[in-house]
Amino acid sequence: MINNKKGFFITFEGGEGAGKSTQIKMLHEYLSNEGIASILTREPGGTKGGEAIRELLLTGEGDKWDPVSEVLLFSAARREHILKEIFPALSRGQWVLCDRFSDSTVAYQGYAYGSKSVSLEEIDILYRISVGNFYPDLTIVLDIPVEEGLSRVKGRNEAINRFEAKEIEFYEKLRSAYISISKSNPDRCVLIDALRSKEEINSEIISLVKRRFC
Amino acid sequence: MINNKKGFFITFEGGEGAGKSTQIKMLHEYLSNEGIASILTREPGGTKGGEAIRELLLTGEGDKWDPVSEVLLFSAARREHILKEIFPALSRGQWVLCDRFSDSTVAYQGYAYGSKSVSLEEIDILYRISVGNFYPDLTIVLDIPVEEGLSRVKGRNEAINRFEAKEIEFYEKLRSAYISISKSNPDRCVLIDALRSKEEINSEIISLVKRRFC
Repeated sequence: MINNKKGFFITFEGGEGAGKSTQIKMLHEYLSNEGIASILTREPGGTKGGEAIRELLLTGEGDKWDPVSEVLLFSAARREHILKEIFPALSRGQWVLCDRFSDSTVAYQGYAYGSKSVSLEEIDILYRISVGNFYPDLTIVLDIPVEEGLSRVKGRNEAINRFEAKEIEFYEKLRSAYISISKSNPDRCVLIDALRSKEEINSEIISLVKRRFC
Repeated sequence: MINNKKGFFITFEGGEGAGKSTQIKMLHEYLSNEGIASILTREPGGTKGGEAIRELLLTGEGDKWDPVSEVLLFSAARREHILKEIFPALSRGQWVLCDRFSDSTVAYQGYAYGSKSVSLEEIDILYRISVGNFYPDLTIVLDIPVEEGLSRVKGRNEAINRFEAKEIEFYEKLRSAYISISKSNPDRCVLIDALRSKEEINSEIISLVKRRFC
């Protein structure tokens, strides 16, 4: 689906309060100082259509959407994002740093919903329909104990979204899911202990990126 | 996916200006006079979430969404519609009369987009993920020559939506698609000549419904 890919595609994953936004910005700044052009983007969102879908997904009651509907909506947003934002940037030679991507769909809708989860087979079929045979070059999974992550989110004093209003058990399942995804995809994913200072984490990510791509 | 189905599920399909809304209302009235409870609904839409997706799909530029994204969005709306509106009504014993359903996805995104069409295999996979092994009891396909249908739509003096702003060739493909879908599903679909008075068409539909379900 993409011709002439020149840049690298790095995704950031992890539960609430793990520091994804902070780390993605710090890597963006590092790359910029090194003279490497990169774009910062996020899922769901990243395009006009994707942001409109984001609004549908993140606002309203916790049970607003059936889990399968939710994966279909995320897949539509991802398709737009891939075709209109991510592929064009990678073809221009820019790197793409993305805050959440398909592993979040697997972790949230595939694991954390418990008995209401969507089958991993269906999630995989929807990935192939919406994205095709294309995967991130590197996925950084920030791991943090649930209590610590949630207390950081609360400290932000921002309005919480549909996914931030769940029970603690939900977040425990989510954390286990990210750990399990990382272990199942050892070539693509790196699990990073996010219970350290942002500078320490940033410096680990930079070493990782240098080793892989520079 | 549905237990205890008691009512019948009838979908109305066809190009622009074929008279779907008129005929569905006339059948609804007939059933009501016969003491049969039915609900009138439409796709995309029918639920709060579905109507929000409808807004995304029908407004904006013609090329706002990639065709695959479009099918994913229709599938999400259909899933909500099926789970929250159609199945509950059928379980209560109501009949469901639906203005457009999955055949419109096949006709529009599967055929009428020409070289940009989505494969019928993908459309079928998405149907099975969003709806499962469940199909309308009867599909009434209203057939009308393209020029006539479009001139009726123009006569309505309403704002046109994304799908009504296409070229004539698009509508010709759409009409052929509905005819071909009807021929491929002879047990479920009935192709009806819509170039007659609304009373004649209504009376043909009533005979059909009586023969099948009463």
